[in-house]
Parts: sequence; structure tokens; C-alpha cells
Amino acid sequence: MAVYTEVSFEDLEDFLDRYALGEPLTFKGIAEGVENSNYFLQTEKGRYILTLYEKRVNADDLPFFLGLLKHLSFRGICCPIPVADRSGNQLIELNGRKAALFTFLNGVSLRHPGVEQCASAGDALAAFHQAGMGYALKRPNALGPRGWQDLAAQCMARADEVQEGLSDLIASAVADIVPTWPTGLPQGVIHADLFPDNVLFVNGRVSGLIDFYFACNDALVYDLAIMLNAWCFEPDGAFNITKGQALIGAYQGRRQLSDAEIAALPLLARGSALRFLLTRLFDWLHRDPNALVHPKDPRDYAKRLRFHNKVCHAAEYGL
Amino acid sequence: MAVYTEVSFEDLEDFLDRYALGEPLTFKGIAEGVENSNYFLQTEKGRYILTLYEKRVNADDLPFFLGLLKHLSFRGICCPIPVADRSGNQLIELNGRKAALFTFLNGVSLRHPGVEQCASAGDALAAFHQAGMGYALKRPNALGPRGWQDLAAQCMARADEVQEGLSDLIASAVADIVPTWPTGLPQGVIHADLFPDNVLFVNGRVSGLIDFYFACNDALVYDLAIMLNAWCFEPDGAFNITKGQALIGAYQGRRQLSDAEIAALPLLARGSALRFLLTRLFDWLHRDPNALVHPKDPRDYAKRLRFHNKVCHAAEYGL
Repeated sequence: MAVYTEVSFEDLEDFLDRYALGEPLTFKGIAEGVENSNYFLQTEKGRYILTLYEKRVNADDLPFFLGLLKHLSFRGICCPIPVADRSGNQLIELNGRKAALFTFLNGVSLRHPGVEQCASAGDALAAFHQAGMGYALKRPNALGPRGWQDLAAQCMARADEVQEGLSDLIASAVADIVPTWPTGLPQGVIHADLFPDNVLFVNGRVSGLIDFYFACNDALVYDLAIMLNAWCFEPDGAFNITKGQALIGAYQGRRQLSDAEIAALPLLARGSALRFLLTRLFDWLHRDPNALVHPKDPRDYAKRLRFHNKVCHAAEYGL
Repeated sequence: MAVYTEVSFEDLEDFLDRYALGEPLTFKGIAEGVENSNYFLQTEKGRYILTLYEKRVNADDLPFFLGLLKHLSFRGICCPIPVADRSGNQLIELNGRKAALFTFLNGVSLRHPGVEQCASAGDALAAFHQAGMGYALKRPNALGPRGWQDLAAQCMARADEVQEGLSDLIASAVADIVPTWPTGLPQGVIHADLFPDNVLFVNGRVSGLIDFYFACNDALVYDLAIMLNAWCFEPDGAFNITKGQALIGAYQGRRQLSDAEIAALPLLARGSALRFLLTRLFDWLHRDPNALVHPKDPRDYAKRLRFHNKVCHAAEYGL
């Protein structure tokens, strides 16, 4: 959690002149996200987040992300809304970075969401999937099966430095999953990274979704598979089926899964465990000792992948 | 700028039960200060800063700091006010650190304050000095002349690695300044670190003072000497006498300097330049390549010290 690009209040002043936000009252760097630099701005008119996009976000993708947030917010999803300047620009340049200003959302992220929060988050995911329908822009999932093969190739040689047997685990997962990866499942805009960090709660209920910088077009149920991994395992690595039930049940309360989606869930859960294992392993092996952010331990996702390898039916997730 | 100790919302929940603050709406780590970890907390009742004290703050000093803030706020100074829990405790433990909750102040820090802001800050310094009168607790200045001798001894051997001639500059400054350091000047509580980072502005006027963790009892005019160094030099190293005039003039508008204080100002300015040169040099020479905070360049203060070495009279600062 860090601020990568420092922005002084003076840097901000010219920028603020372009908006109609009133007098600035607070401006502070916040330690949030691992990809971008974020600042909390309060003015007479309201509270905002200023985001500066660092190298990991492709500038060409920004119109997709900003347009999506606007599309979602018009359809009742509580997410950051891009604020346009007086000329209508949402995307600006600040201190050598692309940057955008967003409305601020109330809510706190939970490190260990309970069963009720899993249900509330499952409901929010389904609402997001429904609201995303009809969004005109498209973005492929850069971290789909083809991306895994590239990442695996770059990590394999050194994977066993992190954990014995990890290269075998990855090789057989890639060999199993990639050729059988399902096509033809209902598609739409997915969040693709809806971890507890990216869901805000007030009074134990979801108050907002944030951090859409992995959003893309893919199978909707893949988002649910990602959430099973991110929300339903306990710190000791055990799968909590009560949380799985709550998550899937609340999702289906709003959007019923098809038979094909249910059948695909175990494979999608394996694939999403592999995806986070690979990106974490890559970051771990290529970590910069001077970096402001400590990379996450890839072994948590190796453990999840081993769990999913033994799952035969979505019922084992609580469906 | 960083958060050293991570606090999850769950870590906070037990803590919040002890206060009567209502439902939490936002909780975010903020990148502020180099000594402590700070979180922004908004609840139904208001906005707060949660501070966790890291190793550089001596826990024995915390009652002095918290009591001072309360004393000052009762006397009209806008500063963070410690918030007591239902049992009246201001100081608590959280994630292995001493911690305290404070009211949040509006305002933004300026990197390059102008002449009018120097005047507003000089006025705020004098108001703070007056409000500090009668504060019962005492804390000596750990970074006074004796502290400089210790720091100089620890840095001398490697000082020329940073800049040629730096060890000579320090040796002669210590030899000149320490034996002639004035005693008998009007004493009181000084901030001792009133850099632009620690002064908040709204609409170009001071809205609050923060970061009192170097506050101590010392000569009041020494605070003004520190501010001459911190506020009145341009980025190219030149002293801006217009800013000096504004700072000292506004200070005197509220609290007249005595003849002894005016006579001592050049020596105090040299001493305070030496103090920041030494602490920055120490941090530079002992920097941890993995640290989240980049140490400040000590050479800026070597340049200021060389400037003050040639000053004969306070008039040269704009008095």
C-alpha cells in the first residue's frame, strides 16, 4: 500500500481550476491499491479520489474503465463515478501520469468477511453483472488461459524455489485446464478482481465496489469462481462451505446460473486459482527489494489450486 | 510517506466499541508523516485520525504530547484534539503499538508557501506560543546543542561522503555555536518542527497546526529561527527576505521580540540549520535501502548553514 507519484497541493491547484469543485479542504495521499497512486480530496462540494495511473495500467484501457464506471453508476451500482472537468474531460495528465477524479464512496474493506458479508457480496456481484449488460466498449481478459501460459513459461524454471513441487503443480494445471477451458458460457463484463479489498461495507452490507482495473469481457460465472477463491477460504487454507453457500445462494437470488455454468464451476475455480497463483508467483520472483509494496505469498493460491483439483461438482462449493 | 503498521478494519472494531463514535463509514491508511502510521477514520459522528506510534517516538513522551494538544485546543489553537474513550483513556494499544485517536483538521499543506502564507504561519506560531503558556508538563529539547554534539560525533567520519568539506563545516559550527548558545531567552513550549508540511491552509490562511512530536520546552524565538530555515529559502537555496519580513513581522504583530531575542536570532538560525543538517545527515548515512521513506537531502541544510554563517544581524532576515 503506497503512493508512488507524489502530488503536492500546488501540483493540484491548476488541475482544480479546471473543475467546479469549490475550495479544497483536504488533500492526502492514501495507502490503497498496489497498481496506482490515490489521493483523498475534500472540497466544499464533496469528497473525491484522485487516481494517478502507474505503469501497470495500460493507458489505452482507461476509456473502457471510465466508461464502465459511468455505465454502472447510471444503472444503480455504487462505484466511483468519474468527474468531468468544465470542458467534459474525464482523463487528464498530472505529474507525468494519466489521472482521473472520482466521487468518493463510504465504506470499509473487511479482511475476514463473515457468512453474511459473503452473501451481501454475492448479491452485489450479480447486480453488477446485470448492470454491466449493454456496455458498448469491449476489453478482452488479458489474464485468461493464453496469459497463464505466458506467465507459466516465465516462472516455471524458478517456481520450486518458492515451494517444492510448484512447477509440477503449475505444469499439470496448465496442461489440464487450458485445452478444456469452457467456451459458450454466458458472457458479460466481469470485475475479475473482486477480492474483499475491493468491496466496501457499511453496517455489514455492501456499500460499494471499487478498483475495476481488471474488468473485462468474459464468462460471468468466472467472477463467481474468483470470489469463491477470494472470499470462502479461511486463513488456515480450509474451504468454508457455509460461506460458499451464502455467496452462490445470494448470487442466484438475483441471477440464476445455467446448467452449463454450474457444470463449469469447478474448472473455473481451478483456472482462477491458477491465475492468481501465477501472477503472485511472477510478482514474487520479480520483486524489487526497494518496492513500496510487499508481494503476496503465492503459496496460498497453490493450496487453493490443490483443493480445487479434487473437486468434482459445484455442490462441493455449497451450490 | 507510508503506513508502517497495517491495521485492518477488524483490528479496529474492538477499539471502536470503546468509543461513542457511531457507525464507521471510511477507514484508510494515509501517507503522511515519517515517524508514525496514520489512518483516516470517518464515522457517523465525524472525521478522525488514528495514529500508531512507531519506534522513533518515545512512549514516555506521549502524555506530554497529548496533554499539550488538549491544552492548546482549549486555548483556541486549531490542532488535533485527542479523543478519549468511554473510560476517559486517550492512549490505547493497537496491533502492538501505542495509539491515539484525534479529531481531523481541514486544510492542505503547501510545498512552496508564498509571502502571505509565511505571514499567516508567523502569526499562527505566535498564537501557539502564547497558548502554550501555563502548560504544566515539561519536556527538554532532545535535539538541542548536546544532542548535536552526539549526532556530529556519529556522522563526522563519513560526512564528506555526502559533500566535500561537510565534516569541516559541521566541526566548526559545533565549535562556534555550542559554547555560545544563548541561555536566558524567554522560554515556553515550542513546536520545534513547524515546517510547511505541518501547517494546514484553507483559502490561503492557516487552518491548523499538526505533528507536535518534537514539541518541547526551549527558547520561543528558536521556533522562529527554525521557520526562517523551513519557510524562507527558495528551491535554489536563496534566502527570500520578503518572506522573512512577512514571517517575523506577523509573529511580532502578536508577540514582540525582546532585544536579546533579536540579537540571538542569527546564532539560533545557525543552530537550527545545524540541527536539521545533522539529523538529515544521520538519516542519510544510516538509511535502510528497504525503507518506505526516502531520507531528505542533508545538503540543503549545509547550504542554509553557510548562509547563516555570514549573517551578522537579524535585519538580514527582514526584521
